[in-house]
Amino acid sequence: MIEPRTLPGFMELLPNEQILFEQIKQKIEKTYQKFGFLPLDTPVLELSEILLAKAGGETEKQIYRFQKGDTDLSMRFDLTVPLAKYVAKNYGNLSFPFRRYQIGKVYRGEKAQKGRFREFYQCDIDVIGDGELDIINDAEIPSVIYSLIKELGFEDFTICINNRKILNGLFESLNQKENSVQIMRVIDKIEKIGADKVKEELEEIGLSKEEVDKIIDFITIQGTNSEKLAKLESLGIENENFKKGLEELSTVVKYVKVFGVPEENLKVDLTIARGLDYYTGTVYETFLNKYRELGSICSGGRYENLAEYYTDKKLPGVGISIGLTRLFDKLNELSLIKAEKYSMADVLIIPMLEDMTKPIELANELRKNDLNTEIYLNDKKIKAKFKYADKLKIPYVIVIGEDEINSNQVKIKNMETGEETLVSMNAEEIVKSIKYKV
Amino acid sequence: MIEPRTLPGFMELLPNEQILFEQIKQKIEKTYQKFGFLPLDTPVLELSEILLAKAGGETEKQIYRFQKGDTDLSMRFDLTVPLAKYVAKNYGNLSFPFRRYQIGKVYRGEKAQKGRFREFYQCDIDVIGDGELDIINDAEIPSVIYSLIKELGFEDFTICINNRKILNGLFESLNQKENSVQIMRVIDKIEKIGADKVKEELEEIGLSKEEVDKIIDFITIQGTNSEKLAKLESLGIENENFKKGLEELSTVVKYVKVFGVPEENLKVDLTIARGLDYYTGTVYETFLNKYRELGSICSGGRYENLAEYYTDKKLPGVGISIGLTRLFDKLNELSLIKAEKYSMADVLIIPMLEDMTKPIELANELRKNDLNTEIYLNDKKIKAKFKYADKLKIPYVIVIGEDEINSNQVKIKNMETGEETLVSMNAEEIVKSIKYKV
Repeated sequence: MIEPRTLPGFMELLPNEQILFEQIKQKIEKTYQKFGFLPLDTPVLELSEILLAKAGGETEKQIYRFQKGDTDLSMRFDLTVPLAKYVAKNYGNLSFPFRRYQIGKVYRGEKAQKGRFREFYQCDIDVIGDGELDIINDAEIPSVIYSLIKELGFEDFTICINNRKILNGLFESLNQKENSVQIMRVIDKIEKIGADKVKEELEEIGLSKEEVDKIIDFITIQGTNSEKLAKLESLGIENENFKKGLEELSTVVKYVKVFGVPEENLKVDLTIARGLDYYTGTVYETFLNKYRELGSICSGGRYENLAEYYTDKKLPGVGISIGLTRLFDKLNELSLIKAEKYSMADVLIIPMLEDMTKPIELANELRKNDLNTEIYLNDKKIKAKFKYADKLKIPYVIVIGEDEINSNQVKIKNMETGEETLVSMNAEEIVKSIKYKV
Repeated sequence: MIEPRTLPGFMELLPNEQILFEQIKQKIEKTYQKFGFLPLDTPVLELSEILLAKAGGETEKQIYRFQKGDTDLSMRFDLTVPLAKYVAKNYGNLSFPFRRYQIGKVYRGEKAQKGRFREFYQCDIDVIGDGELDIINDAEIPSVIYSLIKELGFEDFTICINNRKILNGLFESLNQKENSVQIMRVIDKIEKIGADKVKEELEEIGLSKEEVDKIIDFITIQGTNSEKLAKLESLGIENENFKKGLEELSTVVKYVKVFGVPEENLKVDLTIARGLDYYTGTVYETFLNKYRELGSICSGGRYENLAEYYTDKKLPGVGISIGLTRLFDKLNELSLIKAEKYSMADVLIIPMLEDMTKPIELANELRKNDLNTEIYLNDKKIKAKFKYADKLKIPYVIVIGEDEINSNQVKIKNMETGEETLVSMNAEEIVKSIKYKV
């Protein structure tokens, strides 16, 4: 006998939780579809040569990579690299801007620890332009985030926005261009480690006290979004990148409002740099205000060139990603999400008869009327059958025994309230009584 | 530069095809839900020790198996073994009968050839009993298959049904019990290789001519389902297994009809044995009558004990599986399936303005009214924008330029018919005009 067990870092849920998970996943998918994003499904396995064209360092160490026959294979570690391959491969068959969503599992062999997953769902959208992509696309993304987080049931959240060109321009104006990636990595941590520690780390990189102060002053600019933008303007930094970034950010902030995102849900946050090197313009992070400790639950940004490793075509894009498995794990732990219903069946028919004909026929009819209907098909005491409905949280139960057959009437029991409704044993009547409630 | 390519045997679709695939997948899922099956999602990766507890021979050779650190890992090759592990592991937390569906990718490193996939979706349902599971559950399964194939748009199909106990009983009565698995494998091929070749192969196993004739007579019994059952009865074979199997099959055939499956869609077929060794009772195969060459598109059966490698609990079950990737590939190739719609967006708004405010605001409103709405956000000639709508098969287009702003009216263009409807630039009116058509 082998002990049945699941690998650490691999989520596997009980049915009630799985139902909740599916509902969350579906809400995300529906939101993406509402904005016209197209579905994409790519293989979990790819040639290592393809998947690791860019990767290096930490990422590469985490890859599930192996040989099968003569082929060097890897399991995908995100959905962006497969997208890059896909767009480069199918360039001639796609219409641009190519707007796609993908919801799928990715794999990272990280150290196992609570809240970290080795297999997890990413839910991505990206808009890819052919050669160019108007900045207004960057303003639509926060409206997708906004719709999505609202759809998940949250009101009190902040979409933080910044533009990497502003930071880069600042560093250039300080003659620190070659250190910019390093500096941004440090800045990105200000929320976690505080301003003093950031100062320290910046000095370690080799910046003067004056330069460090300038950077800190800059990233701690206060005020409303328009006040921040005005202050940035008033700094008078004569750097092309800086100016371009400020212009982009101003356009995005203006249009995000038009896209229906309320002022209080959008915050220009100059500390956000996103650790990844490949963002080149707008960057996003999203926080639940009461649960900052969850970190950003939806992040992304603008990149200059999606698929440079696979094609000469210039393919700029903007996108976001949600790490659904971790998010679900946290929200579920904190009881911050509830399912609309916790059972797949709307109604359970409990036969208390030798001959199952009538119960089965009724179930057929209910299903034809779009009620998810289950029949308890095994020979048990009635108590056990009700317990089953109860444990599965099936909202309605109909018992059919000799009495019901003789009277041609059934009681529909509401399992939550205990209330019973007597109706004719007739699909139409039963549907009328149940359908508008489930 | 690396040539962007996808591994052979791994399906990757263009957007229009992907939309169709998603719709088929969703129809299968909805059907499973309609019968109250619960969703399950298990890891793609498992410990090899778990996944290969039973496997051997051909299966084992096809496994994607590798070492990561000290851990011996395998990618799942079906959804049944993970189910067995799951039920054994969570036995105390599940309600029985445990009815679950799972739709997910599985991996088999088969020889690459047309129509064979190394990564493919399986869509499974299983009903698992705790200790026992009434035979009537076997009669519900064909009604799920029936609903599902109808839902996919087919009318002319046959669900073939048999019971392994009948065959086993026959072999026992011929004193060929020890050869039964081998004999069944040969019989299973009668459709493909014909009766003469089956005779030949049976003789090679060591059966006498007389025994072979008995078997052939038996598996070629003709007539309606009830005629076949009557003939089996009249054979007077005095074997417990045979009698039990015949009784089960009779009960199942009787109840399948009650479950709403028409006579013409169910056929008792005594040649069906299913290659797999682990079925012990009812077995199913499903054929599109005009496309027998596709083979069975939905198969399964009853097994005595799901999880014997992981638990002492006896867990009998019955289930079916659809190999969706291969099925989709074939149906798509033969143009036998059509999407309900080929675009995610119901409407594309084409702005012909500097200021995007009005078009964006209108899109927000349409989305609030549950219309999937996309705005063409890039600066292109109007012709290019219409071409985009056309290629993406978006059914409706609304152009918004200066004239529309001034008149506060827009034309809704039906992209299929070319028809244009003039309405006020007002979400309610537009929704009224479009919504009931998409």
